[in-house]
Amino acid sequence: MTPTRVVAFGGGHGLSASLRALRHCVPELDLDITAVVTVGDDGGSSGRLRAERGGLPPGDLRQALVALAGDHPATRRSAALFQHRFAAAVPPAPTIATPVPVAVGDSLAGHAVGNLLLHGLTDLLGDPVAALDHAGAMLGAVGRVLPMSRQPVGIEARVRGADPEHPDEVSTVRGQHQVAVTPGTVESLRLNPSAPAACAEAVTAVRAADWLIFGPGSWYTSVLPHLLVPGLADAIVSSPARRLVTLNLVAEKETSGLSLPDHLDTLRRYLPELKVDRVLADSTAVADPVAVERAAESLGARLVLAPVAVLDGTPRHDPAALGAALVPVLRADR
Amino acid sequence: MTPTRVVAFGGGHGLSASLRALRHCVPELDLDITAVVTVGDDGGSSGRLRAERGGLPPGDLRQALVALAGDHPATRRSAALFQHRFAAAVPPAPTIATPVPVAVGDSLAGHAVGNLLLHGLTDLLGDPVAALDHAGAMLGAVGRVLPMSRQPVGIEARVRGADPEHPDEVSTVRGQHQVAVTPGTVESLRLNPSAPAACAEAVTAVRAADWLIFGPGSWYTSVLPHLLVPGLADAIVSSPARRLVTLNLVAEKETSGLSLPDHLDTLRRYLPELKVDRVLADSTAVADPVAVERAAESLGARLVLAPVAVLDGTPRHDPAALGAALVPVLRADR
Repeated sequence: MTPTRVVAFGGGHGLSASLRALRHCVPELDLDITAVVTVGDDGGSSGRLRAERGGLPPGDLRQALVALAGDHPATRRSAALFQHRFAAAVPPAPTIATPVPVAVGDSLAGHAVGNLLLHGLTDLLGDPVAALDHAGAMLGAVGRVLPMSRQPVGIEARVRGADPEHPDEVSTVRGQHQVAVTPGTVESLRLNPSAPAACAEAVTAVRAADWLIFGPGSWYTSVLPHLLVPGLADAIVSSPARRLVTLNLVAEKETSGLSLPDHLDTLRRYLPELKVDRVLADSTAVADPVAVERAAESLGARLVLAPVAVLDGTPRHDPAALGAALVPVLRADR
Repeated sequence: MTPTRVVAFGGGHGLSASLRALRHCVPELDLDITAVVTVGDDGGSSGRLRAERGGLPPGDLRQALVALAGDHPATRRSAALFQHRFAAAVPPAPTIATPVPVAVGDSLAGHAVGNLLLHGLTDLLGDPVAALDHAGAMLGAVGRVLPMSRQPVGIEARVRGADPEHPDEVSTVRGQHQVAVTPGTVESLRLNPSAPAACAEAVTAVRAADWLIFGPGSWYTSVLPHLLVPGLADAIVSSPARRLVTLNLVAEKETSGLSLPDHLDTLRRYLPELKVDRVLADSTAVADPVAVERAAESLGARLVLAPVAVLDGTPRHDPAALGAALVPVLRADR
């Protein structure tokens, strides 16, 4: 029997949650997992690397690789190495062994080792997909991680009230980080360049998939950008795969004005041809099940409610619970 | 049958040549290889890491790991990644995707990826030996790499004529790099601190070894420092292992005043109790075989001459030829 081919779209923590949940399905389902990751990050270690040296921002790609890293103690240790961030340099005090005072730099502080490793691998191999495949092998990854595009993109939004003192003014907010933290209301989203080339391997994976999974994650900066890459949008619409949307547990800053039905409506707004088969939401996070059901139906989807949040009250998906909810969905109608 | 346990001492290129030669012995001999590496480097990427962030200088340790990396294409690619050096940053031109000019840093230029990885692993695991063992596993290494000490050391020399304008003046030259390139004559060598603690795992390996191999390599900065670590010197002298010295092909800058017999004499000078069983030298590099034989005999050793240099005329050991010369030596009298 061939495995069920699943492509999960996202970036950052939401995609990690989705991938970890998919791993929890593996005892019951034979899955072939591909993660397709946004490449719009411009903050932190990724932003510095991108600005100073070019290439794709590696952070979200690294998070996806780590979420798929093998269970062997050695690959788990390698995954911990990928995630390890260099602290600020505290140079050794001048001692008898290093009597000459040295200039103190702080060149590595804040960089995740895996970001440097992915950047170096891309340097060495000349291609980000080859670099990701090798990094995946180093981590014994149980799936493949691909960028949505081989070129880094800018994320820009027209935002009403980005400046709280002018709540009715609409201005352009540039950069994934700035969009993610804007206190205003996002009125429209675009990539820059506006039509980046899709990663060919991602297009191939989408066309061959049995399921495409969108979300959870920062809606404007991690979920919707994929729909704005024309080659990827075409593949998503024309793929014979079924499509699942996993909704967030709470609105984030960038989506503070959006209800859960609004989240679903934005998908159609940015990709009108998109049809969805299932919408998965947490039983207790849905305040108005009828409204969410109606929004799901307008995309062609059936709403599935399940307890998928962690039990400590923080708004995070529990990978085991989300995995348990995914099993019957992914198994349905094959 | 238990494997022949070999411990090779050195640092940098000479140790790499020795380790690569030992790998060439493996089809004919069952070897258990341990490299014990100097930790005095203060130049380049290693020197910057050490000065800015503390810890052992990783460069020579990295070279030894790479020399032992597995033959699988994936581990060879990982070894290439360890060796890859970041070039100077050439930031992307401001484009439509990154319209805001960014401050350009050059934080990674010159660092080998493997150096950053070893530094990060030591950070993460809290111990350089654990870090080296994990890095060895990542590379599928066919042996173990250990530092001679868990604390970095300074290398200092009293040098006559360090300043060519005062050829008779004796001054102190500090730092492995400075000693390695001094135009003067090294009169004496010391570590700083003068008696660093030996790496316990290295002591254990030496005590359990069948063969200890010294050289080739920069004599003052890579070969002799091991003899100045008291715990290691004790283990070397008291080990039941046989001892082999592989001589260099040509004098280097730091040893410009030393003949091959002088090289052997320095071993006795810094560790008077040292007995040696075999001295291996290149047939054509030995100008005065009788003098070298006499110097070898004064250490208790028999001189073995073999063609071990590359054939292109550069003064480098050929790993296959050196390996072929090592096989009968390491097999003798077991």
